[in-house]
Amino acid sequence: MEEALVIGIDVGGQSTKIGVIDIQGNIKAQSVISSLQEDINSYMEDLTKAIKALIAKTGKISQFKGIGIGAPNGNYYKGTIDSAPNLKWAHDPQGNPLEIQLSEMIKDQIGLPTVVTNDANAAAVGEMTYGAAKGMKNFIMITLGTGVGSGIVIDGKVVYGHDGFAGELGHTTIIRDGRQCACGKKGCLETYTSAMGVARTAKEKLNNSSIPSILRDIDIDSISSKDVYDAAKKGDKLAIEIFDYTAKLLGQAFADFVAFSAPEAIVLFGGLARSKEFLEEPILKYMNENLLGIWKNKIQLKFSLLKDSDAAILGAGALAWDL
Amino acid sequence: MEEALVIGIDVGGQSTKIGVIDIQGNIKAQSVISSLQEDINSYMEDLTKAIKALIAKTGKISQFKGIGIGAPNGNYYKGTIDSAPNLKWAHDPQGNPLEIQLSEMIKDQIGLPTVVTNDANAAAVGEMTYGAAKGMKNFIMITLGTGVGSGIVIDGKVVYGHDGFAGELGHTTIIRDGRQCACGKKGCLETYTSAMGVARTAKEKLNNSSIPSILRDIDIDSISSKDVYDAAKKGDKLAIEIFDYTAKLLGQAFADFVAFSAPEAIVLFGGLARSKEFLEEPILKYMNENLLGIWKNKIQLKFSLLKDSDAAILGAGALAWDL
Repeated sequence: MEEALVIGIDVGGQSTKIGVIDIQGNIKAQSVISSLQEDINSYMEDLTKAIKALIAKTGKISQFKGIGIGAPNGNYYKGTIDSAPNLKWAHDPQGNPLEIQLSEMIKDQIGLPTVVTNDANAAAVGEMTYGAAKGMKNFIMITLGTGVGSGIVIDGKVVYGHDGFAGELGHTTIIRDGRQCACGKKGCLETYTSAMGVARTAKEKLNNSSIPSILRDIDIDSISSKDVYDAAKKGDKLAIEIFDYTAKLLGQAFADFVAFSAPEAIVLFGGLARSKEFLEEPILKYMNENLLGIWKNKIQLKFSLLKDSDAAILGAGALAWDL
Repeated sequence: MEEALVIGIDVGGQSTKIGVIDIQGNIKAQSVISSLQEDINSYMEDLTKAIKALIAKTGKISQFKGIGIGAPNGNYYKGTIDSAPNLKWAHDPQGNPLEIQLSEMIKDQIGLPTVVTNDANAAAVGEMTYGAAKGMKNFIMITLGTGVGSGIVIDGKVVYGHDGFAGELGHTTIIRDGRQCACGKKGCLETYTSAMGVARTAKEKLNNSSIPSILRDIDIDSISSKDVYDAAKKGDKLAIEIFDYTAKLLGQAFADFVAFSAPEAIVLFGGLARSKEFLEEPILKYMNENLLGIWKNKIQLKFSLLKDSDAAILGAGALAWDL
């Protein structure tokens, strides 16, 4: 019998990764195209070319069950990308956001059933199927990257809600009237606990204190969360304080998320989650301080076991098995 | 053919209501017992006597499909009431909370399959089956009573979470380091937006302002949310301000809840929800101010259509049809 395969696609702000996945979750082949094209036609041309090349390389079209795509603002119900701020080809030449019929276009070009979801949901499915949340039916995946995203799993299923947009936990309010967020609101969790949020905290703490720090040797406007991590590694007190503050807000937020869906675990994912050694202990401490008695010391905190792009490709692909 | 029936039970802090329900959702007969007994044995004796009497009155035991119970801290998975603070018989003589095996006890006594859930979840099922959320698959029910409870419905199913305790939205933090809550935390939504929370707000505003108000004619320590409602009805400026403040915090909280599960509607239920005329407009205003763009002016705010006790009885009963 022919081996069954699916294609998983992770649409990122910089690049789009495409992988061919077998039933065991092995990525049998993959390729990458740029996400930086100006218009949707040239992006689609590159994407379909890359998909066709991968199919030709790994098998016959009849082996492929479908295509799963994880994309910013991907909508599961509509199969669209809806006004994704960081993708130029998702806007008209005047810069107005478009609703891209991604699922339909791919299906037309490749001839395989196609499903779209947002990138955090895809990563959650990846972790549930192959990673840190394997075997769990109730967990919340928080992606700590440039922004803060989330994928919520209840009873073994991703929560999409009434309109397909459920799970925007990065835009819940952690500090009322706090930092300005790109979404237009103020004090969103994302403004404090994304990689950019950590850089903003660093800038604030450097400006508002005189604590000595090796971060003072870096141009203040170019400090990144990676710089803070490197400094913390060297025992820098201020850098460790920055992580502690980040962990405090995450712990407070997680306590409220737990009150919603009573998950078995919170799973952290994305670039900033690699700073586990400076985040794990304080997040647990602050979360437990803020949890109701019934949940104290009972909610696990997990860090992703998969490479970031792998989780998204594997998760998007996993959705395609059901097509 | 015999008419199929179920029994729905609403365990409240003061009284326990028992109803016999047919497939159309008619309450064919009901009775009430006191919840104020000192120990579990006398409470169970009263309860089973009342159930048996209702069964004898309305049909034959073979017509009954099962019993559904909505109770404070009711746990769907375990069939228990876990340390319910307001029920004396759920504690030992020293006042230590007990885990009451309610489902098993009722099943043993009556011989019918029995399911337990918390009171807010039961009310949510009632609204979904017969009330304001009829036909909806994604909504959040918020009960504004002595406390603030919640029942979350996603994809047509109540969310129970990993341990059966999901949906404690009354204990999410609305003001960090705010009012002391009975749960041990500070700043819980419940401390501001329950009936007691409204009374606390009234007291604060009367003490901290010199705005004239007919509420000043009442002993400040005995002011209730009903007094505030009556004053607002008469156009009292301070009373209307109290409702506006309550609505502001509810609107802010709801915006964050929407970011979690993207519901079609928030449904309000319980004593305070009867103040619809002073809450509806400001809650919508504040919620929309705090929602992400994708949800602005798209989330409905509904007020329960069922009498409070009916919703809980009907909802608890509705769960029993699946037994």
